[in-house]
Amino acid sequence: MTDNPDELERLRKIQGGDVRTASRLIRNLEDNLPEAKTAIRQIFPHTGRAHVVGFTGAPGAGKSTLVDAMISVFRKQSKTVGVLAVDPTSPFTGGAILGDRVRMQAHAEDPGVFVRSLATRGALGGLSRAVGDAVHVMDAMGKEIIMVETVGAGQQEVDIINHSHTVIVVLIPGMGDEIQAIKAGMMEIADIFVINKADRDGAGQLENELISMLNMVSEFPGGWRPPIMTIGNLFDAAAFREDVEKLADAVGDHYRCLVETGLLADRLRRKTVMEIHDALHDAILSPILTELTQSGEMDRITKRILQKESDPYTIADEIAGKYARDGKRNRMIN
Amino acid sequence: MTDNPDELERLRKIQGGDVRTASRLIRNLEDNLPEAKTAIRQIFPHTGRAHVVGFTGAPGAGKSTLVDAMISVFRKQSKTVGVLAVDPTSPFTGGAILGDRVRMQAHAEDPGVFVRSLATRGALGGLSRAVGDAVHVMDAMGKEIIMVETVGAGQQEVDIINHSHTVIVVLIPGMGDEIQAIKAGMMEIADIFVINKADRDGAGQLENELISMLNMVSEFPGGWRPPIMTIGNLFDAAAFREDVEKLADAVGDHYRCLVETGLLADRLRRKTVMEIHDALHDAILSPILTELTQSGEMDRITKRILQKESDPYTIADEIAGKYARDGKRNRMIN
Repeated sequence: MTDNPDELERLRKIQGGDVRTASRLIRNLEDNLPEAKTAIRQIFPHTGRAHVVGFTGAPGAGKSTLVDAMISVFRKQSKTVGVLAVDPTSPFTGGAILGDRVRMQAHAEDPGVFVRSLATRGALGGLSRAVGDAVHVMDAMGKEIIMVETVGAGQQEVDIINHSHTVIVVLIPGMGDEIQAIKAGMMEIADIFVINKADRDGAGQLENELISMLNMVSEFPGGWRPPIMTIGNLFDAAAFREDVEKLADAVGDHYRCLVETGLLADRLRRKTVMEIHDALHDAILSPILTELTQSGEMDRITKRILQKESDPYTIADEIAGKYARDGKRNRMIN
Repeated sequence: MTDNPDELERLRKIQGGDVRTASRLIRNLEDNLPEAKTAIRQIFPHTGRAHVVGFTGAPGAGKSTLVDAMISVFRKQSKTVGVLAVDPTSPFTGGAILGDRVRMQAHAEDPGVFVRSLATRGALGGLSRAVGDAVHVMDAMGKEIIMVETVGAGQQEVDIINHSHTVIVVLIPGMGDEIQAIKAGMMEIADIFVINKADRDGAGQLENELISMLNMVSEFPGGWRPPIMTIGNLFDAAAFREDVEKLADAVGDHYRCLVETGLLADRLRRKTVMEIHDALHDAILSPILTELTQSGEMDRITKRILQKESDPYTIADEIAGKYARDGKRNRMIN
């Protein structure tokens, strides 16, 4: 792999669970530094043991609180835990807004828990790649359960959640029409449904709707029919803890099902194809965009398009021709 | 441009506002058919007159109802209107869920209104491109106001909303912590804030929070401080209509500000850079992905990565080397 003593030391530290080294690497991934990529190449062979659990659902559905509670349950089972909170950020300043979650400080003293937040830097395709790599870092650290929490439920979230083995869709009663549509869109990626804040009006109706939707599915891959778990009021502490423990059990059941039916291999394949796409964007498209920008060419072609002298497709074909044509010809000869 | 009589006829029909021709072209854009690209090249010189207004905000915030009401107001001002509703879809089946909005049927008989929904096909980067092109189609049809409505508020939505000249962020009172974060993320892209369902508890608090956030901004580009518009209960029809009319006035004010301060040119430049990015993805990365998949190479490299014989970055560099290296060298000699 490497014989650079600094790099070997970094790898050894990450495998030993060193929080500072891992945190620095994740920050470098966020900033898309080349050395982060080198580090990922080195830790990659030491990954693949963690169970990655993704949480998605509408904003305000209470995902963070649920993830918090799940940490405690997994820790009681003596499992080590990593949490990656994917935060929304300004597309222009690129700064994380939620930052490292204050409310997860409860676990700050526990070396078995590693919590990091990851911000979008506005780079197209960049976030999904950073999430996948941060999961690899936590995996190499030896974290047995890695929970990935996203804010929102759009296509970007679907890309992020595809890095998970088990996907939990968190819903709350009493949302409008549009949330129904999202629910439908989330239907096929959910392994477990959670009805959170289930003491609210409309919880029974929401459960019935989910059951109806599930009843329309003729066959579930691996025979896994997504269970619908309800989580009651946070302030009835004993009942809440019991609900969360049941959810943790369902997560364990799903992982066993994935392993026994061979579905895990399918998920890993899907995850890998996505990582290849992200890496290709990074290796092929990003350098072209950088060069166009730095050389001032981007300004020139933007002006031509704005003056209607050309259009984006014609310009893109011209650029593609310069970068790819000879490569292609060469490859066909080989 | 073209001397193909069929293509000239299509262009003429679209410029004449023909709904069937335009609808077919938008469907072809969604399906990413090559002929759609050719059509966009032809209509491109005939675009650039519409005012594009984007609506974003959390699911359930009532954006669709608001867009509906805005159609009526703009029609009373004798402006022609296009509406593009960007729908969430299943990442696997790719079908639109909301379809063409039933509740917009009110305007179905009015030739001055053209409503279309656009679905994500799960293709990375594909949706933003399709949205931009569908806006070009409506623009070429002569629609004076084009409203783009997105579901959700993630990064994907930001990419979509960047196709707009005026961005309206729709909020409702009484949402949780996470919505606050999204609000902050939306802060810098909002030209107008709408507090919808403003008769609900918490509307005053939400308005105060927004005012506090705006007060922290030291300078607004072009001197435009985003106004906060409140829209009351839908069932108080007269007051509701008045609120919506005020919002339409604010939209007009913003456009005048964009034109007078030269900010419009900045927006158009940003939009064009994004269109170039999308077109480059399409022209450079998509064919490589297609070839890898069809040749079976994607299966082989996925297997190598899963067996930890390699990693995504090393593989991507190999592929980039094959496609791009000679092109690059060639370009540097020229």
